[in-house]
Amino acid sequence: MENFADRLTSAILRKNSRVVVGLDPHPQLMPPHLREDASLEHGEGIQAEAHAIMRFNEEIIEAIAEHVVAVKPQVAFYERLGSWGFLALEKTLAMAREAGLLVIVDGKRNDIGSTAAAYAEAYLGDGPLAGDALTVNAYLGEDGLRPFIDRCRGSAKGLFILLRTSNPSAGDVQDLPVHGRPLFLHLADLIDAWSQGTEGEGAYRSVGVVVGATYAEEARQLRRRLPNLPFLVPGYGHQGGTAADVASCFNPDGTGAIVNSSRGVIFAYRERYGPEEFARAAKDAARDMKVDINRALGLGD
Amino acid sequence: MENFADRLTSAILRKNSRVVVGLDPHPQLMPPHLREDASLEHGEGIQAEAHAIMRFNEEIIEAIAEHVVAVKPQVAFYERLGSWGFLALEKTLAMAREAGLLVIVDGKRNDIGSTAAAYAEAYLGDGPLAGDALTVNAYLGEDGLRPFIDRCRGSAKGLFILLRTSNPSAGDVQDLPVHGRPLFLHLADLIDAWSQGTEGEGAYRSVGVVVGATYAEEARQLRRRLPNLPFLVPGYGHQGGTAADVASCFNPDGTGAIVNSSRGVIFAYRERYGPEEFARAAKDAARDMKVDINRALGLGD
Repeated sequence: MENFADRLTSAILRKNSRVVVGLDPHPQLMPPHLREDASLEHGEGIQAEAHAIMRFNEEIIEAIAEHVVAVKPQVAFYERLGSWGFLALEKTLAMAREAGLLVIVDGKRNDIGSTAAAYAEAYLGDGPLAGDALTVNAYLGEDGLRPFIDRCRGSAKGLFILLRTSNPSAGDVQDLPVHGRPLFLHLADLIDAWSQGTEGEGAYRSVGVVVGATYAEEARQLRRRLPNLPFLVPGYGHQGGTAADVASCFNPDGTGAIVNSSRGVIFAYRERYGPEEFARAAKDAARDMKVDINRALGLGD
Repeated sequence: MENFADRLTSAILRKNSRVVVGLDPHPQLMPPHLREDASLEHGEGIQAEAHAIMRFNEEIIEAIAEHVVAVKPQVAFYERLGSWGFLALEKTLAMAREAGLLVIVDGKRNDIGSTAAAYAEAYLGDGPLAGDALTVNAYLGEDGLRPFIDRCRGSAKGLFILLRTSNPSAGDVQDLPVHGRPLFLHLADLIDAWSQGTEGEGAYRSVGVVVGATYAEEARQLRRRLPNLPFLVPGYGHQGGTAADVASCFNPDGTGAIVNSSRGVIFAYRERYGPEEFARAAKDAARDMKVDINRALGLGD
């Protein structure tokens, strides 16, 4: 069985794309006609909202599939709709798989013992919410991560551990000085040790890290320190990260990272073509982002 | 409207109980006849498992309500069943409210920006998954917590931020030395500042912290440093924390903390009375835990 790291690298090279699209269905930003159509059949409540999201994601996935390597549904946007939202998430995972995309479930889960094991089973097992990879938080230490990391050995599953996030307050905790250097660099060493044993055939491990595009210098330090860990890079576009910023997350051969954009792609219709053509707008935005990053890396389109 | 801190203190005093029961339905530990009964009606799959959990929680909640102040469903155990699991969680929240119990949703959620806002809406809003309080992780810094904290001002909602967890690896990150003292003490100061403005009529704020029973000396330090923050204390019983250990989490008047036990209560039938009487076993275990803690605090039964 090909491991997650190898699947990721092979998707990057095959599609010449380093793009992940975040499937974050903000209720205020969805094309209004989808909700109206869903209301005709399912009324005014949560059920209609969930059906609108399913149709939205279906059309987005079909449109962007050729230009992106993965999709990353942010679980919060589904959770807000309770059991109906999770039904929408389950359908979304199935549609993405059908389209040949890797699925990174952005849950930022974290817990200990049997609870961590339950999360690992939910998101890296065989159930209805399982994706190819999951995001997790390391504040609880190694035993909170071990059930996830162990699922990445000898399997097709992967993990991205929050290391340096893209938000303005990221430094509140992550930059606290530990032995004279910021906490996130210390955590990088721990993750480097914990992730051993998840190597694939190629250069990378199946346990990677989340490194925000908005902190280019920190990303450069981390890329040097963690040459074998794949980076999941949020913060491009809406949050202010540019293609030049994200370039520091890649190894010289243009592998080792994937860059996420959410609203800049899925809600691109607000900048071009209008709501009726939201899928075409997303497709062109994904293609533009792919080209933007490839050019910053000195690669062909 | 009474704020969360005041509701918590008043429940502690009214019931003379400092007990929270974790509703963590481990599939291997559930009374077998519940699953068998559910299968007769709902077949062999996830749907039957979800229905078994609903019946289990219903009987547990009814049995323990007089001896406990709150229940704490651990979301992971519901998430593993996808949308059916969330339906079971929604029903559980409704049953607990009906029984007059506070509900702490143990999700350990964490994210930034609009995603944090989506989580805050899901768990501290008015939707089907909303409880009275939620557990969250602070690794992302203040802007990741702000949407949750803001919901605790002038409302009945509360928050518990992971500070010192109860697991063996807790120290991997939480004990890293920052300016000569462990990270968790530094984070305690940050949380003390961030939580201002959530005071109730009584001594406490509606933003509290998670402090494991398994590290009594750390708990004592934190109690002194954070006199006005309620503590949610996991680790009693199965994880090794005793009533003497948890005593250091309370203020001298016996308020300011609630202690969680999960499997020691809900699966007490494995030690007494057998599976058919799981509810009576849970009721007696909750009463024994209440008395055990009250005695360690020098309070009447």
